[in-house]
Amino acid sequence: MSMSYFMTAAAGDHTRVLLTLFLMLVAAKLMAELFERLRQPAVAGEILAGVIIGPSLLGWAVPSEITSMLAEVGVIFLLFNVGLETKPAAIFKVGKRAAVVAVLGVVTPFLGGWLLMRAWGATTVEGLFVGTAMVATSVGITARVLSSMRLLDAPTAGIILSAAVIDDILGLMVLAIVSSVAAGAINYVEIVTTAVLAIGFTAFIALVGAPVINRFAPRIGRLRIGDSFFIFGLVLCLGLAVAAASIGIAAIIGAFLAGMALAEAAEDDYTMHKQTNGVTEFLVPFFLVNIGMQLDLGVFRDPSVIMLSALVTIVAVATKLIACAAGAWNMGKRRAAQVGMGMVPRGEVGIVVAQIGLSLAVITAELYGVVLFMAVATTLIAPPFLKWLYASEAALDAKIGPADAGGIVVKDELSKIC
Amino acid sequence: MSMSYFMTAAAGDHTRVLLTLFLMLVAAKLMAELFERLRQPAVAGEILAGVIIGPSLLGWAVPSEITSMLAEVGVIFLLFNVGLETKPAAIFKVGKRAAVVAVLGVVTPFLGGWLLMRAWGATTVEGLFVGTAMVATSVGITARVLSSMRLLDAPTAGIILSAAVIDDILGLMVLAIVSSVAAGAINYVEIVTTAVLAIGFTAFIALVGAPVINRFAPRIGRLRIGDSFFIFGLVLCLGLAVAAASIGIAAIIGAFLAGMALAEAAEDDYTMHKQTNGVTEFLVPFFLVNIGMQLDLGVFRDPSVIMLSALVTIVAVATKLIACAAGAWNMGKRRAAQVGMGMVPRGEVGIVVAQIGLSLAVITAELYGVVLFMAVATTLIAPPFLKWLYASEAALDAKIGPADAGGIVVKDELSKIC
Repeated sequence: MSMSYFMTAAAGDHTRVLLTLFLMLVAAKLMAELFERLRQPAVAGEILAGVIIGPSLLGWAVPSEITSMLAEVGVIFLLFNVGLETKPAAIFKVGKRAAVVAVLGVVTPFLGGWLLMRAWGATTVEGLFVGTAMVATSVGITARVLSSMRLLDAPTAGIILSAAVIDDILGLMVLAIVSSVAAGAINYVEIVTTAVLAIGFTAFIALVGAPVINRFAPRIGRLRIGDSFFIFGLVLCLGLAVAAASIGIAAIIGAFLAGMALAEAAEDDYTMHKQTNGVTEFLVPFFLVNIGMQLDLGVFRDPSVIMLSALVTIVAVATKLIACAAGAWNMGKRRAAQVGMGMVPRGEVGIVVAQIGLSLAVITAELYGVVLFMAVATTLIAPPFLKWLYASEAALDAKIGPADAGGIVVKDELSKIC
Repeated sequence: MSMSYFMTAAAGDHTRVLLTLFLMLVAAKLMAELFERLRQPAVAGEILAGVIIGPSLLGWAVPSEITSMLAEVGVIFLLFNVGLETKPAAIFKVGKRAAVVAVLGVVTPFLGGWLLMRAWGATTVEGLFVGTAMVATSVGITARVLSSMRLLDAPTAGIILSAAVIDDILGLMVLAIVSSVAAGAINYVEIVTTAVLAIGFTAFIALVGAPVINRFAPRIGRLRIGDSFFIFGLVLCLGLAVAAASIGIAAIIGAFLAGMALAEAAEDDYTMHKQTNGVTEFLVPFFLVNIGMQLDLGVFRDPSVIMLSALVTIVAVATKLIACAAGAWNMGKRRAAQVGMGMVPRGEVGIVVAQIGLSLAVITAELYGVVLFMAVATTLIAPPFLKWLYASEAALDAKIGPADAGGIVVKDELSKIC
């Protein structure tokens, strides 16, 4: 028996996983660089990298428990990082408008998806599931685009982030109701309990978290362990992510709230920002590549699946874009379009809904493929338009002077230092 | 069917894993803070945190594929970070002395372990495996202690790091030979091939890597993607870790070499250092806590297992300490002791050897427990002594002036900036 036999037995699995991580990272960054050179958003390149190296095409990397876990931790840190740039006051200021955007952006795509599926001849339950998969915005993608363009302080960024938080809570309630219907009975008590918990948790962290942390921040700095403020941030981020997931909202919402609660206290801590940024830069590619790897191009050999995928994607983009833009209409046309397009990506949230439908055996493998296509496509479609919508505003501002103060302006210390 | 049912089906596994990661991080950092306040090394506290929350005591966290993978990535980044502080020239300067330290530190513990087991009445193969498990130093622990004390520029740090690299290559060859013996036949060709590959790889990266990177560093900075130098570092780190593991040396040696090849080019890049440091700070606790979680206190109900564990640990500490100190004797008594103690921790390397023995069914579960105890105990014993050996030298230096230039001095830009 050879030595490589023993090494394989002992360390082979680890080596294979390390190789997968290496390939995911390299593919993501090569595609990001290529897309940047083509003046396209890097995030789209990183998702496409996943499609290319994934099982559908080259098969160099396969989604596993480990890649999906790293993807989850990656998007958690992404939202934590975004939260760090978002002061609670900025969110409260836009709360009402964000709520209107969120509600319109939940109801319209749900109805659109349901009607389309009924017109296509699908069952009621299939219609309900596709409608639900169209509901929840994956704010990670938009946040990534805004953050890479250093636009988290744009007037519309706060609206998008706040609306996405509300949207997640509403989407969750829709999922609960639809799942109950699919299972044969609606459990009203459970739905109301979860809704109350979710809203209470969000309000508590947003209202109480930041003042408490601002007060205790100096004490954290006096701890004996090195980098204590960064470590406190890590603990709070993972802790609130777990807490959010336990009461039924997405873990990323907890991470975002953790970042937001720390935003003021961490404002001038350049080292802490760079340390968090290092973790985020390392882990986010796994989130993006993992989305692309989920896409199974095989189901699209059937022309009717292609047709339905195209229709579902068009409805998904159109309903979210129009409804959310309508909710932000009084900000002006361009900004309304920014908000609408910012809410388009469905990403991993739509995929989770489809997975639940598949596990309940109420949707077919083909319909799962359709939803997955919609989730990936909306995620790929939005970034170039977002980039264009924001870039043209910046060009406009340069001509006519600074942006009006009608929106929110989050002070970005980092962009000055960098 | 309730909503939490669906959330459990879809996201419950992720939530449970996130909870485990959260508990590992919190336990590690609380124990680190406690140990710092007791003036003990934080690293020992973090390993003990693993023993406490692990299956042996509280059972709050259980080692899984995911925790062990995060642990692996954690120690990879730890060694990458250490490599970043280590200039190749510093290593070459101490190469000869490090080789003597490494060879003595491989032969003596191996013989000591083998003789002890034979005297205890164990079989030849058992003796060979315990001896092999005593061979390879886990440089991660010592590196962590030195780095937290900002002592990577101490005269003996370079010796310890270089000796650990050589030690790993030698330990690998011993493992190959012993595994062949256990399996019934020695494959000389395979052993020689691997040895040549391992030595060639190390020499190539150390000799050619740094000059090439220094030359191309300005071009990396001109890439379009943000933080391109940090991302290049990530890619090189994972890439060389995979390459090292593929040819049979530990992945951490590849990561260390990657860091070393980048050390000069990254010297003045504060942002890149902080980003790498953020990843390391986040992931290293998983490495340390995971070591502690592996310890099964249950096997120690048998008094003879306790007795043997104590004897094996004593022999493991004594042989490594004495042999390596002898190799560095002409540096002076105190520095020789630093080198000897720095090579004592066996950590994960001994555990891997024991796992191979267990998977080949040539060692019993009790003997596996004994080796695991030795690996964890040597790792816990070394840090306080290391801290004391280095602290007393610093106190001495303060009295009699700066340290002599007999060793190596790696310029530590960071300690000035911080």
